[in-house]
Amino acid sequence: MGDAALPKPHILVAFFRNFSDSFLEEVRNKFPDAEVSNLTQKPGDRIPKDAVEKATVIATSRNLPEPEDAKHIKFIHFFSAGLDTVIGDPILTDSTIPVTTSSGIHGPPIAEWTVLNWLVASRKYNITYEDQKKHRWGPTEEYAHGIQDHVGKKLGILGYGSIGRQIARVAVALGITVYAYTASPKPTPESRRDPHYIVPGTGDRDGTLPTSWHHGTSKSALHEFLSLGLDHVVVSLPLTPQTTHILGAEEFAVLAANKSPKHRNPYLTNISRGKVIDQDALIASLKSGELSGAALDVTDPEPLPENHPLWEAPNVQISPHISALSEDYFSRSFDIVKENLERVDRGEKLVNEYRRGRGY
Amino acid sequence: MGDAALPKPHILVAFFRNFSDSFLEEVRNKFPDAEVSNLTQKPGDRIPKDAVEKATVIATSRNLPEPEDAKHIKFIHFFSAGLDTVIGDPILTDSTIPVTTSSGIHGPPIAEWTVLNWLVASRKYNITYEDQKKHRWGPTEEYAHGIQDHVGKKLGILGYGSIGRQIARVAVALGITVYAYTASPKPTPESRRDPHYIVPGTGDRDGTLPTSWHHGTSKSALHEFLSLGLDHVVVSLPLTPQTTHILGAEEFAVLAANKSPKHRNPYLTNISRGKVIDQDALIASLKSGELSGAALDVTDPEPLPENHPLWEAPNVQISPHISALSEDYFSRSFDIVKENLERVDRGEKLVNEYRRGRGY
Repeated sequence: MGDAALPKPHILVAFFRNFSDSFLEEVRNKFPDAEVSNLTQKPGDRIPKDAVEKATVIATSRNLPEPEDAKHIKFIHFFSAGLDTVIGDPILTDSTIPVTTSSGIHGPPIAEWTVLNWLVASRKYNITYEDQKKHRWGPTEEYAHGIQDHVGKKLGILGYGSIGRQIARVAVALGITVYAYTASPKPTPESRRDPHYIVPGTGDRDGTLPTSWHHGTSKSALHEFLSLGLDHVVVSLPLTPQTTHILGAEEFAVLAANKSPKHRNPYLTNISRGKVIDQDALIASLKSGELSGAALDVTDPEPLPENHPLWEAPNVQISPHISALSEDYFSRSFDIVKENLERVDRGEKLVNEYRRGRGY
Repeated sequence: MGDAALPKPHILVAFFRNFSDSFLEEVRNKFPDAEVSNLTQKPGDRIPKDAVEKATVIATSRNLPEPEDAKHIKFIHFFSAGLDTVIGDPILTDSTIPVTTSSGIHGPPIAEWTVLNWLVASRKYNITYEDQKKHRWGPTEEYAHGIQDHVGKKLGILGYGSIGRQIARVAVALGITVYAYTASPKPTPESRRDPHYIVPGTGDRDGTLPTSWHHGTSKSALHEFLSLGLDHVVVSLPLTPQTTHILGAEEFAVLAANKSPKHRNPYLTNISRGKVIDQDALIASLKSGELSGAALDVTDPEPLPENHPLWEAPNVQISPHISALSEDYFSRSFDIVKENLERVDRGEKLVNEYRRGRGY
């Protein structure tokens, strides 16, 4: 019996949308040695017992089996990075079935969105765009003053996870110096490593890109970081009670007071959640010129109401929570399933495994 | 006499605009051991003998001394990368005074302009911008389809000089695979090195970023390169009789025929000169969808006339020859002067020295 083959893996995909046939074909090609079956269910509906019984792995957004049907399931993979919508489910609270997330695959699109917005602002793209609509070839003088490129600029990243790391990677290529800020200290090479799944060829696995690492949870530690003479600040922190309104009037004043005299005032980028920023204070800082601009993919509230003053704050660029969008999103999520099936085979620890009790 | 100090360098800045006092102060700070004097002259006017006699270095756009006044000048530095406006001047034809250019400092702004345009196109920025003007929070569905990021995409760069190298650097950070194309073969590490001045922290000095190097001057060599399955092509070639209309209907057809089936059609970026592209063929390829878009900082002619059909070609982004603009331009040009003063002191070969007789 020692040479009996392992049972053939069977991946059950349970989702609220119909995946296209061509996408399911792509998934099947990713797993030539596995069965792949597909179930379309309303969000939150339980997966029927007969479907669960055939599967060895479940990939889903929020359709879960009853724990007693799922004892043979090797792991349940979620298409999201966070598990807030299923956190009280018996699968998480009453079972020990390994659960994995899609953390780590948001870096490339969000880094692209971030750099897009920096460059739109710094290279006066909107003028070019409006002129093209009018068939107008503007004179150089309209651009010559105020275009600074990013060589020698300083970027502070609040929350150096997989998203911050891919932003750092592109920033360094542009000639920017990167500073990382985390809640807990990261003094050792091991503590600086990115433990999550990484899209191949991206990110900063070893955490070697920042020129220096800073940390703390106090206002004074944060203010010290914001005093480094930063040209850009990117917020990529999770929203928690501690990070709510972590940036407000005082922080914008600290940033502006420490800016390089030859550079534009600091520019703020938020790809986290709207509530990490005191939005009224942000509007005031943009109006006074204390901040030279802001790129916001998230606002408070969302959708931002039509009559909200943030829409018209000077030099703000708002997008409707789309920075993570990529046609490759689900394909990359299944790359994590593939990696973990191989790890199961090798008897290794899963990547992106949710640690019950930590809350994220 | 052996310990006599070298004569104090004297840099004469001759230009058609008045540099600001703060900029001249910055230049003087760059050269604490040199005199810096400043002359404002019409373009092309000769520098007076008495001004030349005091100087040891001249930095200019197109004001030159009489050769007989300038025998003691160590070198003449030009603020431009090319010397086309002064190529017949006696200083170039009848003297042997070393002449240096500002080649190498255009990489950072032009790379930023290039990546800006890629991301505007791929991440549907213009929709976001128009929606913000209307205070409209668009639904995710309007973005979800068609946003691809750049991980795993392929970029072909025609002309791998300092500009192409900085584009390559940012592209690699985005997860792109880079292919270089040059007229002459570059088989050795030495031949792949960038011989020009490089803005510190940018570019690809050793030419290690391309996955492969390709070369040739024949149509078949070019078509072989364009058959690599490229998602992006960047033209950063000088305009010569050989490169005039180097890309036209046939080349666009080759690009489209070899594209990856899962990717958008190829995207063209031109930061060279308008005439390297057959513009009528480009318009036709954009209309047919053979090319998915184009970013053009240069057109044929310039300014592009108001009634020209290129303005309205599908998915084209046109800017008025501004991609090299940067407030740091002149400061970087003087960095080359500084580097060369140090090389004169050490008796070394100058960087960016113009080779008389080669024509560029």
